Amino acid sequence: MIYITRREQFNAAHKLFKEEWSNEQNMEVFGKCSNPNWHGHNYELFVTVKGEVDPETGFVIDLKVLRDIIRTHVTDKLDHKNINLDVDFMKGKMASTEVLAIEIFKQLKAQLDSLNVALHGVKLVETENNFVEYFGE
Amino acid sequence: MIYITRREQFNAAHKLFKEEWSNEQNMEVFGKCSNPNWHGHNYELFVTVKGEVDPETGFVIDLKVLRDIIRTHVTDKLDHKNINLDVDFMKGKMASTEVLAIEIFKQLKAQLDSLNVALHGVKLVETENNFVEYFGE
Amino acid sequence: MIYITRREQFNAAHKLFKEEWSNEQNMEVFGKCSNPNWHGHNYELFVTVKGEVDPETGFVIDLKVLRDIIRTHVTDKLDHKNINLDVDFMKGKMASTEVLAIEIFKQLKAQLDSLNVALHGVKLVETENNFVEYFGE
Amino acid sequence: MIYITRREQFNAAHKLFKEEWSNEQNMEVFGKCSNPNWHGHNYELFVTVKGEVDPETGFVIDLKVLRDIIRTHVTDKLDHKNINLDVDFMKGKMASTEVLAIEIFKQLKAQLDSLNVALHGVKLVETENNFVEYFGE
Amino acid sequence: MIYITRREQFNAAHKLFKEEWSNEQNMEVFGKCSNPNWHGHNYELFVTVKGEVDPETGFVIDLKVLRDIIRTHVTDKLDHKNINLDVDFMKGKMASTEVLAIEIFKQLKAQLDSLNVALHGVKLVETENNFVEYFGE
Amino acid sequence: MIYITRREQFNAAHKLFKEEWSNEQNMEVFGKCSNPNWHGHNYELFVTVKGEVDPETGFVIDLKVLRDIIRTHVTDKLDHKNINLDVDFMKGKMASTEVLAIEIFKQLKAQLDSLNVALHGVKLVETENNFVEYFGE
Repeated sequence: MIYITRREQFNAAHKLFKEEWSNEQNMEVFGKCSNPNWHGHNYELFVTVKGEVDPETGFVIDLKVLRDIIRTHVTDKLDHKNINLDVDFMKGKMASTEVLAIEIFKQLKAQLDSLNVALHGVKLVETENNFVEYFGE
Repeated sequence: MIYITRREQFNAAHKLFKEEWSNEQNMEVFGKCSNPNWHGHNYELFVTVKGEVDPETGFVIDLKVLRDIIRTHVTDKLDHKNINLDVDFMKGKMASTEVLAIEIFKQLKAQLDSLNVALHGVKLVETENNFVEYFGE
Repeated sequence: MIYITRREQFNAAHKLFKEEWSNEQNMEVFGKCSNPNWHGHNYELFVTVKGEVDPETGFVIDLKVLRDIIRTHVTDKLDHKNINLDVDFMKGKMASTEVLAIEIFKQLKAQLDSLNVALHGVKLVETENNFVEYFGE
Repeated sequence: MIYITRREQFNAAHKLFKEEWSNEQNMEVFGKCSNPNWHGHNYELFVTVKGEVDPETGFVIDLKVLRDIIRTHVTDKLDHKNINLDVDFMKGKMASTEVLAIEIFKQLKAQLDSLNVALHGVKLVETENNFVEYFGE
Repeated sequence: MIYITRREQFNAAHKLFKEEWSNEQNMEVFGKCSNPNWHGHNYELFVTVKGEVDPETGFVIDLKVLRDIIRTHVTDKLDHKNINLDVDFMKGKMASTEVLAIEIFKQLKAQLDSLNVALHGVKLVETENNFVEYFGE
Repeated sequence: MIYITRREQFNAAHKLFKEEWSNEQNMEVFGKCSNPNWHGHNYELFVTVKGEVDPETGFVIDLKVLRDIIRTHVTDKLDHKNINLDVDFMKGKMASTEVLAIEIFKQLKAQLDSLNVALHGVKLVETENNFVEYFGE
């Protein structure tokens, strides 16, 4: 069993807020992260798959295949977008790093399962001071 | 003459667009950077001042003073904000990295001039693949 | 179960030495790390907690709370200090990266337990070429 | 149980190709990575060992000892070399990151076992966008 | 006048050697960099252009245009290639970082001059410990 | 004219203080940087030389020569040392980043002048948030 990781990136806007709360309530819970006019980040996404090495190619998975899956199903939908407004798989969800990491994991797992590739986990870096890791339930 | 640089950061939303153009015209010129619902970045700002070393302290400038000027007059106004909508010194201006760097330089120069500190230049990093430097006219 | 990590930093002096040994014995075992007049590092500390996502906030923990705990109980005590001489929780202990990571873990665990937050582990980076990770016993 | 990691580096040439295939077949499977005239990378190798802290020294292992083992048995054999042609432990093997990580692990395990030091795993970074981790079978 | 920089990357093999010298002479002058079977690097290329900001767009240059010029005329020719053998503009030249930076500058200057864009300089990073900068004669 | 830069590192202890002042006066001017028991940093030093490319070797300077000069005359004297107490060329001087950069420049200039190599400047990075550059008078 060996683990291989691909990094992709996206630049997106978001805010932390609950529509059913007032701006004041949101500000109290989420602070500056709830600025009504949004803010944004350069996100880094690390996707790790695991498996045996194919003796023919020396690969667990062709990284170009993994890259294309990440781009098509995740980062192209997020890059230069508003996470709260523009992203199908985030509709109606809190745009926190935690929730975003879980939803990205689900998007990738659906794709990789159909290729019989084992998704190990995702790491989502929001700033140089914080990141989230999710490995499924 | 010696140069000393302080780094500060801010996370902000923006878009590249001209109000007098249609979304289609904006998309043609600015591509995905003109997404109507905004996107965002982790910006890094490097501010460089120059001068002689004070023989008493060994300092060109107390970096805590420089840090506080940058935060009060620049990064507190930009952090977790929308550059197009929320920032007084960017009102009515294109929110490109170039224009933002020039306007940040002007804000800092006004403050540092009044302290007789020579601002050398600013470097504004938008992503790991692009940055702008401005040293005044 | 999801993992979230906060990075904090501190700049500190230390040396590796045993009081009951001579300088020569210390030099033999610890090499240049036992320089009697100290040396120092920019340490990076990564603190990882784990838990379920709160459906109300999208958070495992409010990162501002985690940041304040790390600063109050760990990094404010270490930053611009001498690890061997100035830090209450390191008194009488070897100032190696290993021991420091374990003691930092204990400080944080005591605080986080009282909040019912699960500390997963700490990573302490001493230089770009070495770091230590500790996850409890 | 605590984990300590040492980073070493090497700059090497390689290509992904199978001798029994034509250049066209290799290009079809491996793309630009099979360029007949080679290409190369700055590799970063992170080696993690685990153990109890020695109460006398505060160490799991003297990092100078670990560094010397990594250099003598792994990175000196790879640095400024051709992975396919020059490296004894890679003879007849695919020069993929996965296979290289596994073979490096085996080299280190043989050495560390003889010192009663537990090798936890290796991480081999090929570019800023991809890396492999191997923890043994 | 403002300066804007774009980063691109390439992974390439090379060696430092003179054909008219023996392997021993090459080894004496160039050390391990002259390994006959090649070695390689992850190169980072920073290209800086300068100019006035277009008041209509807020741009000195559309970075997508600059990126495409760098890729077409420089990095696509170098990426996953052998600098000594595969690159038209390096034929018959020493594959040192210095010479490569100068030749890259010439390639870009020819293109940018025809667009009336002023090339300020290039920075070519070979490893984390060394880089070269060239600004023309 | 081309510029080539070599990075070296050192880990050192220091404090900012004037012997003729009380601890209180030092604390007032230098804040936590004057902690009597010292603190420390991982310093990065970038040394840039400039010149014409030797047509025989493709080099401005053999980087191994530059590396050895930096290590012998600068970083071996600073690494794992106390800048205030242990370093001959810093005796009686303020251990600020500014003063240290100037004194390092002088040490290197004396050596490089005797080899007819032109020292362009030094950059001394104290933390990820501050650095100093000095190019001579």
